Amino acid sequence: MSTTASSFKQAEHKLLSVPGPVEVTDEVLFANAHPSMSHVSPAFAPVFGDCLRYLRKVLYTEKGQPFIIAGSGTLGWDLVAANLLEAGQKALVLNTGYFGDAFADCLETYGAKVDQLGAPVGGRPSLEEVEAALKKDKYAVLTFTHVDTSTGVLSDAKGIAETVRRVSPDTLIVLDGVCAVASEEIRMDDWEIDVVVSASQKGISVPPGVSITALSQKALKVLDSRKTPIPAYFANYKRWLPIMESYEKGTPAYFATPSVNLIYALEASLKSIVDGPVSLEDRFKMHKEAAKKFREEFMRQAGKLGFKTVATSPEGAANGMTAVYVPEGVAPPALVGALAERGIVIAGGLHKDIKTKYIRFGHMGVSVVERPSDADKILAALKDALQAVKSA
Amino acid sequence: MSTTASSFKQAEHKLLSVPGPVEVTDEVLFANAHPSMSHVSPAFAPVFGDCLRYLRKVLYTEKGQPFIIAGSGTLGWDLVAANLLEAGQKALVLNTGYFGDAFADCLETYGAKVDQLGAPVGGRPSLEEVEAALKKDKYAVLTFTHVDTSTGVLSDAKGIAETVRRVSPDTLIVLDGVCAVASEEIRMDDWEIDVVVSASQKGISVPPGVSITALSQKALKVLDSRKTPIPAYFANYKRWLPIMESYEKGTPAYFATPSVNLIYALEASLKSIVDGPVSLEDRFKMHKEAAKKFREEFMRQAGKLGFKTVATSPEGAANGMTAVYVPEGVAPPALVGALAERGIVIAGGLHKDIKTKYIRFGHMGVSVVERPSDADKILAALKDALQAVKSA
Repeated sequence: MSTTASSFKQAEHKLLSVPGPVEVTDEVLFANAHPSMSHVSPAFAPVFGDCLRYLRKVLYTEKGQPFIIAGSGTLGWDLVAANLLEAGQKALVLNTGYFGDAFADCLETYGAKVDQLGAPVGGRPSLEEVEAALKKDKYAVLTFTHVDTSTGVLSDAKGIAETVRRVSPDTLIVLDGVCAVASEEIRMDDWEIDVVVSASQKGISVPPGVSITALSQKALKVLDSRKTPIPAYFANYKRWLPIMESYEKGTPAYFATPSVNLIYALEASLKSIVDGPVSLEDRFKMHKEAAKKFREEFMRQAGKLGFKTVATSPEGAANGMTAVYVPEGVAPPALVGALAERGIVIAGGLHKDIKTKYIRFGHMGVSVVERPSDADKILAALKDALQAVKSA
Repeated sequence: MSTTASSFKQAEHKLLSVPGPVEVTDEVLFANAHPSMSHVSPAFAPVFGDCLRYLRKVLYTEKGQPFIIAGSGTLGWDLVAANLLEAGQKALVLNTGYFGDAFADCLETYGAKVDQLGAPVGGRPSLEEVEAALKKDKYAVLTFTHVDTSTGVLSDAKGIAETVRRVSPDTLIVLDGVCAVASEEIRMDDWEIDVVVSASQKGISVPPGVSITALSQKALKVLDSRKTPIPAYFANYKRWLPIMESYEKGTPAYFATPSVNLIYALEASLKSIVDGPVSLEDRFKMHKEAAKKFREEFMRQAGKLGFKTVATSPEGAANGMTAVYVPEGVAPPALVGALAERGIVIAGGLHKDIKTKYIRFGHMGVSVVERPSDADKILAALKDALQAVKSA
């Protein structure tokens, strides 16, 4: 007898509490175990179409064009760099950590002239600094990392977008939302965001392997009015646009084979995000509350030991993850190991300047909305792990 | 209670008999439903490492370097074009169908000067023609599609490689094996193939979403001695090489998040291909025998009606798929539809010159090795479907 959705319960495992990949539901995993389907079958096309429609809801956009392409989140940078800039054009990268450095690197690979506007680790450039930079030079695009996974710093997406629109209305606004989509509010139309770059394995709560991006009508016009050819084949939006339009109409089309099973999983997760019992507004509110509570409890337990969040201001701290400096005398790998022994998987450092000095927790998606008790488990294990590490 | 490997049986579904994606085993789907894991967890790293080791066996290479990257098979063309050629260098594309045209297009996108050597639809360039072309000009790379999914034409991989090595030993030999790896014999070391491009969803029998490529030591040297920077970020082998080396040693490393669940699925399938009860040699033999039998039975049933294989010679016909012209009076969509009504999913045409005149069947992987009775089901349904279409 075959396995049914209701009989499928995922295998026992350690609680995954890194800032992505995140815990996913049984429904999503069951969808990922869908029997093989042709990518051009009439049964699969509407599933793909649904994903596109759901993504529009998640991003609060009516005319934004989502793209679902097999790849890592990183592929989204190539899509931006190869399609929305031409060699020699200028880009302003607001840098709040590792992912700012790397995005800048990607833009330069395709010939963009990049200026970076940074801040000390844990901080973010102020809107005044953004305004000043935009007044000093003309940029084809401005990029910012909504949540930088290496620092847990949250950018003021709405404020940045308002500043760009006021000071430099032609500049395309690119929001790197790999670690933000579906855990942080992003109002693509209202805020006039031109590009959202994301992936499946964070707030969207699906296994990794899908690059998810969305373009505003303005970004599509920039794409359409390029003077030079797009210097990439797979990462070419012009090749993917008719495919997305066709699938959305329910008609399969082919450029390169999509990750069929992950798209079934994506549909299952997006359906529950958009049409589930918790509204999108409540989802974002729950992430805010969960982050606040997690950090308060964490500090109540560990603050006196010298732990300190990397993000230097509460309004500049992500709602789906937290990065925390460990005090002198506690080795991050020992703490990560002690937590793993207690069934909790957290992440070590990533930012080059502080790599060996901090740890990172994820608190997004399923662990916030469906199973808020996950945070209690993490904190209980932390208490125990801290004892073990201190007495070792 | 959680679902276990032995209790998981994939959902009932139509038999997928297109030339990829193909049917996959319950074990592979169960692995694809693995609970969320960190891509840098010590438990995941050896799984990734095993995939690399197994791929070497499948390709009969000791020192070839496999790369497993989230993406479609198509991404492999970008990897070749962006990394192993520099703008202005020449490439010779042996064209046996749609995938030759498209690979050429990709190479040109990155600035290569491409010459194509084709043949009438269903045929393949002769080794004499290849030799003559190589003597006329100097090519940095030669590419060929081992099995062109649009025509079912099989290239003589060994013969082509011998010719290139003899006539133009510096030319890199690129085998596009998306529809060939694990269903056709490929002896990377013995035949001195420099690059194999593949994907998860065909002979490898895993859901789509993973680009699989492998480079010879010679190709790695070409990569290493480039004079110009690699014009891509995600599709940059130099960024991925240390990641692959690290995972193979069992140590996680990060450049972009791999498709963790698909890699569990890949491990499950490659393990059964490499270490299962059927040897690799027997696997290839079984594909040859199954293809021969399928085409004989098909022609016995339908040959007198005017069906005809697209591949014009038996030695130039793939062992994992068959493309067949339908006779006047039979509409391919009607036949595809009639088969779907009978639980069998086959594919329509793809090659631009004959698109509306033919149909395609897949017979590779699970349907050949684990469940040879799939072919009987297809042929029985075909008989019935043909009656229905003729009498309609």
